[in-house]
Amino acid sequence: MTAEPVHFKTLNAPLQDVQQNVDARGVVLDAVGISRFDLPLVVVQKDGAHQRVTASIDLSVGLKATAKGAHLSRFVAQLAEWHASTETLCYDLRRFLTETCALQSSETASSDSAHVEMRFKYFVPKAAPVSKLVAPMAYDTVFKASLTPEQGYRFALGLTVPVSTLCPCSKAISEFGAHNQRAEISVMLDLPSDDDTMPVLWIEDLIEGLEAQGSCAVYPMLKRVDEKWVTERQYTNAKFVEDVARDVTLYLREVGKAGNISGFSLQIEALESIHGHNAFARHAEVMP
Amino acid sequence: MTAEPVHFKTLNAPLQDVQQNVDARGVVLDAVGISRFDLPLVVVQKDGAHQRVTASIDLSVGLKATAKGAHLSRFVAQLAEWHASTETLCYDLRRFLTETCALQSSETASSDSAHVEMRFKYFVPKAAPVSKLVAPMAYDTVFKASLTPEQGYRFALGLTVPVSTLCPCSKAISEFGAHNQRAEISVMLDLPSDDDTMPVLWIEDLIEGLEAQGSCAVYPMLKRVDEKWVTERQYTNAKFVEDVARDVTLYLREVGKAGNISGFSLQIEALESIHGHNAFARHAEVMP
Amino acid sequence: MTAEPVHFKTLNAPLQDVQQNVDARGVVLDAVGISRFDLPLVVVQKDGAHQRVTASIDLSVGLKATAKGAHLSRFVAQLAEWHASTETLCYDLRRFLTETCALQSSETASSDSAHVEMRFKYFVPKAAPVSKLVAPMAYDTVFKASLTPEQGYRFALGLTVPVSTLCPCSKAISEFGAHNQRAEISVMLDLPSDDDTMPVLWIEDLIEGLEAQGSCAVYPMLKRVDEKWVTERQYTNAKFVEDVARDVTLYLREVGKAGNISGFSLQIEALESIHGHNAFARHAEVMP
Amino acid sequence: MTAEPVHFKTLNAPLQDVQQNVDARGVVLDAVGISRFDLPLVVVQKDGAHQRVTASIDLSVGLKATAKGAHLSRFVAQLAEWHASTETLCYDLRRFLTETCALQSSETASSDSAHVEMRFKYFVPKAAPVSKLVAPMAYDTVFKASLTPEQGYRFALGLTVPVSTLCPCSKAISEFGAHNQRAEISVMLDLPSDDDTMPVLWIEDLIEGLEAQGSCAVYPMLKRVDEKWVTERQYTNAKFVEDVARDVTLYLREVGKAGNISGFSLQIEALESIHGHNAFARHAEVMP
Repeated sequence: MTAEPVHFKTLNAPLQDVQQNVDARGVVLDAVGISRFDLPLVVVQKDGAHQRVTASIDLSVGLKATAKGAHLSRFVAQLAEWHASTETLCYDLRRFLTETCALQSSETASSDSAHVEMRFKYFVPKAAPVSKLVAPMAYDTVFKASLTPEQGYRFALGLTVPVSTLCPCSKAISEFGAHNQRAEISVMLDLPSDDDTMPVLWIEDLIEGLEAQGSCAVYPMLKRVDEKWVTERQYTNAKFVEDVARDVTLYLREVGKAGNISGFSLQIEALESIHGHNAFARHAEVMP
Repeated sequence: MTAEPVHFKTLNAPLQDVQQNVDARGVVLDAVGISRFDLPLVVVQKDGAHQRVTASIDLSVGLKATAKGAHLSRFVAQLAEWHASTETLCYDLRRFLTETCALQSSETASSDSAHVEMRFKYFVPKAAPVSKLVAPMAYDTVFKASLTPEQGYRFALGLTVPVSTLCPCSKAISEFGAHNQRAEISVMLDLPSDDDTMPVLWIEDLIEGLEAQGSCAVYPMLKRVDEKWVTERQYTNAKFVEDVARDVTLYLREVGKAGNISGFSLQIEALESIHGHNAFARHAEVMP
Repeated sequence: MTAEPVHFKTLNAPLQDVQQNVDARGVVLDAVGISRFDLPLVVVQKDGAHQRVTASIDLSVGLKATAKGAHLSRFVAQLAEWHASTETLCYDLRRFLTETCALQSSETASSDSAHVEMRFKYFVPKAAPVSKLVAPMAYDTVFKASLTPEQGYRFALGLTVPVSTLCPCSKAISEFGAHNQRAEISVMLDLPSDDDTMPVLWIEDLIEGLEAQGSCAVYPMLKRVDEKWVTERQYTNAKFVEDVARDVTLYLREVGKAGNISGFSLQIEALESIHGHNAFARHAEVMP
Repeated sequence: MTAEPVHFKTLNAPLQDVQQNVDARGVVLDAVGISRFDLPLVVVQKDGAHQRVTASIDLSVGLKATAKGAHLSRFVAQLAEWHASTETLCYDLRRFLTETCALQSSETASSDSAHVEMRFKYFVPKAAPVSKLVAPMAYDTVFKASLTPEQGYRFALGLTVPVSTLCPCSKAISEFGAHNQRAEISVMLDLPSDDDTMPVLWIEDLIEGLEAQGSCAVYPMLKRVDEKWVTERQYTNAKFVEDVARDVTLYLREVGKAGNISGFSLQIEALESIHGHNAFARHAEVMP
């Protein structure tokens, strides 16, 4: 092959900024950014206290047709500064994304859309049903926000809550017992995009609301009196994944009527104790 | 403890079928089924030969408001029979999903929508660029099909192709060398839903088309002459993730013009060799 | 910084083989090789038929103090040739590893130790307990072999078998029902290294032996008559993870007495249906 | 179906404690406990400040031949109390494991061995090499401790540090450029078990020591001046995984001479930018 000449660039010359070039292909891109960036963040709890969580973050902007590329180091800089400030994480990431757009703008390019997704384990103290002994329990949580010219500011809250399900069929046909298993309820909730009214949907309340839809909640610490209660509760509250999906749907419709969400998607996946595979149900609705 | 005395239901009475009950909540569900069911399947290669793959499968039906539940064992039965038949897997899963709907129908319920997703590693023999030595290389592949009253039959093909990217900025500003890394191009392609014309989009061709958009393809086996070629090819073909996303977009528009796809989404994620986090670009389009 | 001159190496000069250099640090390394290499392989079933599996492979050699490096492309070449041959995979990987050592030897270096690990899903047709309906079920399997001057040839078989466990405490204290869950029994078995007697330990038999130690086996397909049987079997065979670990230990000691294994390690991990975390037991023994 | 009539056990009778029973099988077990229990913990940094991390924990005890089972809820209780106290996490988990043994002892059983493993992301502020801009960077960390009659107290520190490697072969044979990639150095270090001398091996120092063994460190935030430095540093410091493994070995031998570790195992795995698979090297030594 003929050699592409290896330029010995003048050492002290100002460094070229390739991302500033104009792109000739004329292709707009939905999102360009960084992914799987780990960062400690602070989330406000329902009781007003602050919880430090370990988040994995994706942050990106839309790219106009003429812009060669995004400035990836500015994403890190923004996140690092935000982390270093006393600022806490809440549902209103509008100001953060507005800043993201501004930081990505330069002579040759400007961004008017930005997206962020933050995944972390959120801890809630959970009391056993009878002994009332308390231990922390972790819930996988997602904050997902976007700012676009078409849709304005959008925020979605994702949450995964483990519960148990006890099979109504197994119970109905068996002499004794009924198979049951851990199951995971996962929801992604669209919050209303109205500027002025801060949505008031606490993760703590949502966990309680979702747990109530399984055959029984699951707990970090159970003494024998609790285990008896949980076992009997499961057995007297048999539910298919279909039942849980329907009850979660009814619950979320109520949340929607209160004005706290504008739409949702849900999944319930049960780690069947009689199979090596899982059972699942999935559903999505937009609030009327 | 004492014995196992719990005997209520008469042993020889016909077993109750709880899933046949009528549900009073009046809630339709998008999908109910089984997930992560492993099964060997046979895929037709471009050369006409058959390849046995190990698939992980999700299979589900929509649930009408009055139906209590889906018949989960019928999903497994259908898959097992399909596996046992000489039948091979191709893009036309319409007949399979039509059968899924029929198998789920009973006196009290009927399903008119079904969904299937099959994920597997597909192997293609890949020759080194100079020595031409050949070894098999695996590509993560997804077949995703649905049949609904609203949209009829839909099929989407997902494929992940690893390539390398070499950073244009790093090359432009450095005296020598340029950082490069493995990156993954993932696409999900909507195939035209027209009944009569079988789409002719071979996985083998798609891999080649996508590999051509990175700074260089990656290979299972490289001798020194190949490694020299690959290194120099990367260096003379520097690309940001933005460049790869745009070039994949242009490539897929061409595929769309040929009538082989009706829409696509793509992601390119680079395992940056200078960071602990990744860089990514994402885009989606519907063919005009 | 002062520039390291970028050599325009003469194009037609023979390519330097850096790995052939002598290393001055005097550091022996246990293993150098390739990891996560995907390859279809053929395994002999108990019934004599051949099963094509999708394996993920690690292959390595020990490195002597003076050898600069291993020849990574030769690992791929050996695997590709082996894949292309009609050869099937069995427990005797001694010849394969002897070849690995030979292929890595060169003027300046020689390897006298080699290691290989192959992970794949192995399918076994599994009949429901009452209806006898059959569907394939997948089991995570590992073949792990090494050849070293100190220990000669060693082979270990790893297998993960899902079962269910039903909690004896929950059953004893509750008015009705008992919590149960999917649990995974994982074993790693050292096979006797004696040259002449091929060990006769079929994966199919081992699966049956391990499944018998849970509260009940799990199945791919269960009709209502089967589900009734499984539910009642679980309930009348309550076991803690400790019980399963002990019963697997007793079972494996029997296998050892028959001369089929020389040692084992085991783990049982239960996806507790009353907690978000798991319960586990672990144990290892060397046959006397 | 009709009601829930199954009532055998008298409701107010004291609840049976099945785990207190004597086991007749006579099988000792190495470890019984809970796994994947998530908990926020506090780790002391080198600068004396406290860092709250999100840990995933396995905690277990050995089980004597006569003991029916371990008391799983006591593991959770101990962890929850420990979490609630102001206590911080350090290498000396001896007192914690002594307490674990004591908490598991009862009339019929006593445990004299205990094991704990805590996995978490640990954040360190990391400055870019030229601009000196700082951002947090996460490192996967493991604390692993055991207390047994045979070996007394043992502590091992695990750490994974991403670096980059640039291929010496690719550099030597190519006209320009050289392939490079992200690679992960993972070590597990046995700390001396001597009671009186607290080992002084800070995670912060270990990260620095390991990063120095790659072709170059990786960073969360790099401006163009930094990217130029990193690119040129990689290129002038080409290393195979074998080289990194040897240099880490020499580094850890020095740490051992200083009395800070009594043994180690290491792995370096490179996400090759020219292949879809990885290259790796592995080694272990006991300090003389």
